[in-house]
Amino acid sequence: MSQPTTSPLAPEAFPALPAIDGVTLRIARARYKQWDRCDLTFVTLEPGTAAAGVLTRSKCPSPEVEWCRAALPAGTARALVVNAGNSNAFTGHRGRAAVEAVAARAAGHLGCRPSDIFVASTGVIGVPLPIDKAEAGLDAAFAAEPCDWLAAAETIMTTDTFAKAATARAVVDGRTVNIVGIIKGSGMIAPDMATMLGFIFTDAAIDPALLHAMLGDANRRSFSCITVDSDTSTSDTVLAFATGKAGNAPLTAPDDAGADAFAAALESVCLELAHLVVRDGEGASKFIEIGVTGAASDESAHRIALSIANSPLVKTAIAGEDANWGRVVMAVGKAGEPAERDRLAIRFGATQVARNGLAVDGYDEAPVTAHLKGKAIEIGVDLGLGSGRATVWTCDLTHGYIAINADYRS
Amino acid sequence: MSQPTTSPLAPEAFPALPAIDGVTLRIARARYKQWDRCDLTFVTLEPGTAAAGVLTRSKCPSPEVEWCRAALPAGTARALVVNAGNSNAFTGHRGRAAVEAVAARAAGHLGCRPSDIFVASTGVIGVPLPIDKAEAGLDAAFAAEPCDWLAAAETIMTTDTFAKAATARAVVDGRTVNIVGIIKGSGMIAPDMATMLGFIFTDAAIDPALLHAMLGDANRRSFSCITVDSDTSTSDTVLAFATGKAGNAPLTAPDDAGADAFAAALESVCLELAHLVVRDGEGASKFIEIGVTGAASDESAHRIALSIANSPLVKTAIAGEDANWGRVVMAVGKAGEPAERDRLAIRFGATQVARNGLAVDGYDEAPVTAHLKGKAIEIGVDLGLGSGRATVWTCDLTHGYIAINADYRS
Repeated sequence: MSQPTTSPLAPEAFPALPAIDGVTLRIARARYKQWDRCDLTFVTLEPGTAAAGVLTRSKCPSPEVEWCRAALPAGTARALVVNAGNSNAFTGHRGRAAVEAVAARAAGHLGCRPSDIFVASTGVIGVPLPIDKAEAGLDAAFAAEPCDWLAAAETIMTTDTFAKAATARAVVDGRTVNIVGIIKGSGMIAPDMATMLGFIFTDAAIDPALLHAMLGDANRRSFSCITVDSDTSTSDTVLAFATGKAGNAPLTAPDDAGADAFAAALESVCLELAHLVVRDGEGASKFIEIGVTGAASDESAHRIALSIANSPLVKTAIAGEDANWGRVVMAVGKAGEPAERDRLAIRFGATQVARNGLAVDGYDEAPVTAHLKGKAIEIGVDLGLGSGRATVWTCDLTHGYIAINADYRS
Repeated sequence: MSQPTTSPLAPEAFPALPAIDGVTLRIARARYKQWDRCDLTFVTLEPGTAAAGVLTRSKCPSPEVEWCRAALPAGTARALVVNAGNSNAFTGHRGRAAVEAVAARAAGHLGCRPSDIFVASTGVIGVPLPIDKAEAGLDAAFAAEPCDWLAAAETIMTTDTFAKAATARAVVDGRTVNIVGIIKGSGMIAPDMATMLGFIFTDAAIDPALLHAMLGDANRRSFSCITVDSDTSTSDTVLAFATGKAGNAPLTAPDDAGADAFAAALESVCLELAHLVVRDGEGASKFIEIGVTGAASDESAHRIALSIANSPLVKTAIAGEDANWGRVVMAVGKAGEPAERDRLAIRFGATQVARNGLAVDGYDEAPVTAHLKGKAIEIGVDLGLGSGRATVWTCDLTHGYIAINADYRS
């Protein structure tokens, strides 16, 4: 398959990002595939770094996910290894052996415990990660000069069409702390994350348990609110590392001074990263925000919003720039959540097109048509039942998605 | 949009079908759309006809669905009216008034209660069924000569690319009873949403409650086991009518002599009709059977099978004739049902490609490749956990689906 061109929804430029004290990025060519590009990322973290993470809920996770799940409770990290081109998923004992070998090799270089090494892999499924290539790649990375965020963000990419990163800062205990996140993902994206690998680094000092709680909250409002194709990866991973080098008094409880500011900054980074994944959704030509209000509960609103976001008929209608609110009704109806047809109201952009269970007589089609011709689409649904609300983000379903996923042989 | 060509998965010919005593078919041009074709079907049923049905579980059903739901408990029917070109869904009080007017007009012709008239509509959403056209169409149909099954099966079509029917017979109480079913559904085209309307007629004498139970059982193993794109219509309707003209002693209980034979014949008609809908799935180029065994329960197997069948990544892989079993693993994993990665076994056609959580070393790719090049694809998944099993049917996801659903403006 030829390299896809950059998504039309990509930001104009890669953002300017601060260095994070205590974080050193290196990359190398492990050559997991027949390609001449860097595909192994080795991030070393100063001793004392706190770690937290959220992982796929797939019942068939990759051994990397199992490894991270086992390592997270200790709450400490010395390095992160990311392999691109081979997900190592569904490879049985050989896959487990590969992860153990990677962690042992990295730990050998750093003189730490293997359990302080976090590993994530993305790419083809069913082929064990080749241990020899991984070890040689790690050795090469360890010997390499440090690189910048852009190089690392590019090295974790697989089918992504652009490198993705976000940053935010907060003042904690009188110190400015920085947060930087990088992420990859464009297909197999559904709530519960996707083959979405996201890595967030901060120089803040924060207790791992609190970081974990904050990351979980942020995840619920960001990565769990995006979907490209309703397919959930076996490898979804978001990890956060806090080096503590900013020198603030460590955050340990949600009501500590500065904790709210840090949590808000962390969530803004997560949300920006999540949106970037949608903007690189396979074949995407429109970025779609779906807001549901008036539901029986927030959870119910979330499920209804995802039912709309995952509907192929809604997504193809948006691709066709068609204000087909009937398909939105259909998607509300199939969600299985409390809904009353004759209370439903639907909006495209700022224009109400249906209210009280039927079309708004003579609504002005011009602004709707103009809205749908744009790249940022808003669909609003009010159920008229309660105060539950949720927002999710997705992209449209186009020939590009079929071309990427069907017009090739693996 | 130009008329789509006949699905490559269509049967070679419309089947030969027996007349059903007590059932008279008529059609007319109501001209619900700007077209010159019959679009109203009026089926009259002799007094004494038993009725049963299964209806969409959408929380936003059409007024026709609500009308049928209210009429079914009486268990009797004198006529069925099917409108094509306008689904009358999401049209508020005007839609309800239209259904009442149709039922009243038909009842007036037959001298029966409106509640003995069943009504189903399919087509554009959000536009109330025009009462004047419906009444004029009904009057024309009532005055018309009876027609054959093919004409009726064509008249209920919207975006279908071929007319669909099935038949079976059974011996009950020494009499041969006939069953004929017609159905429409393919997908979802232009501003319409996919709607499956199925109508089954038999001359058997059977108590409506028993017919209802048998139809429910058959539905669970047929219509509830197919998916084209995971989108559930607001109007899905399957109705069964039994005129009793075969003269058998009425079936009233599941253990009556002949009840099993009749139930089996009914199920075979339902299954054949369900498969025909998949074969006309929008853009379909492959008919896919997904069999799940070894699940924790039959229900769990069904949910896992549907998770696979609804996965865009699995469906595009099949379109690409790619034995991408990793995507099948992904779909098993996201179903949320009990699964153990290292017990999973996956088969394409007759070839086991993965077992015990990893690829079968050196499996013969030739038969897999040959199987995937065909039009009838089988995917088998064994979970190795229990004895739960289920089979579902779907089609692949191709450029054709996008072309039909996005490349137009309503």
